[in-house]
Amino acid sequence: MRIFGIDPGLATMGFGIVDVVEHKPVLVKAGAVITTPDMRMFERLRKINEDVRDLLTLYQPDEIVFEELFFARNVTTALNVGAARGSALCACAAYTDRIYEYTPMQIKQAVTGYGLAKKHDIQQMVKLMLKLPDIIRPDDAADAVAAALTHFNTGPMKAQFIMK
Amino acid sequence: MRIFGIDPGLATMGFGIVDVVEHKPVLVKAGAVITTPDMRMFERLRKINEDVRDLLTLYQPDEIVFEELFFARNVTTALNVGAARGSALCACAAYTDRIYEYTPMQIKQAVTGYGLAKKHDIQQMVKLMLKLPDIIRPDDAADAVAAALTHFNTGPMKAQFIMK
Repeated sequence: MRIFGIDPGLATMGFGIVDVVEHKPVLVKAGAVITTPDMRMFERLRKINEDVRDLLTLYQPDEIVFEELFFARNVTTALNVGAARGSALCACAAYTDRIYEYTPMQIKQAVTGYGLAKKHDIQQMVKLMLKLPDIIRPDDAADAVAAALTHFNTGPMKAQFIMK
Repeated sequence: MRIFGIDPGLATMGFGIVDVVEHKPVLVKAGAVITTPDMRMFERLRKINEDVRDLLTLYQPDEIVFEELFFARNVTTALNVGAARGSALCACAAYTDRIYEYTPMQIKQAVTGYGLAKKHDIQQMVKLMLKLPDIIRPDDAADAVAAALTHFNTGPMKAQFIMK
């Protein structure tokens, strides 16, 4: 099984692809879709939508996992981050219905055993779990991989985390 | 020239299509894309994206006009409304770069001459401007038509309203 994790964002949208091989997680790819403030808003959303679509076509995952967004500095930021998430989600929804969602706290808990873990702890645990030579950068890519690992850990309980 | 107006929303996304015929606006179609809370979030976003895409394919507008969102009750609402706007915008950005945006106040000012006009006033003025037998319902469809009419009124000044 192949899991595609997404940490939604407008400037940096992290992604991480994890295969389950003989009951163990193996990293296939991690990275980020970057857009910059000099781009017009719809160009940024178009890039996110197209890049996610291209990644799905290329890697053909079985299931998709989002880190849930429920915090933003203010309403304006929330509108923009929500739009970025919507653009990624549209690409995913056109590809499959098997879309799951975990809160940041559930991801931290699953990966580090502690729901209030710091970025650094998550990066270290992701590195250990996947036996990588170094931590994954940027943060957002590590977070996306952590979301995929959380889904792997959830196993047969995963139905309860299907996106509402 | 054909203008496609959009009033973004998650439950109700109004749209209105206006042709400019001999320097006068003529209503082609007004309506709304409706999604309901019993649908999963990505199903709602997928419907918005697909329906907007289908409307663009069917009506082939030259320019698209969004009513700007900058208010929401709270961050959670903003994330969801932002996602709905992002889904519509992705469909539009795949179709054209000619996307414009006006604030609610600019639209009210353009259509009624008063930036704090009520829903009822906008519906009445839209009816008058387009010589319709009745007001356009729902509100959101009338607002989308009002956005298209604002763009028509802006005429050669429109470049300054291109979406940032």
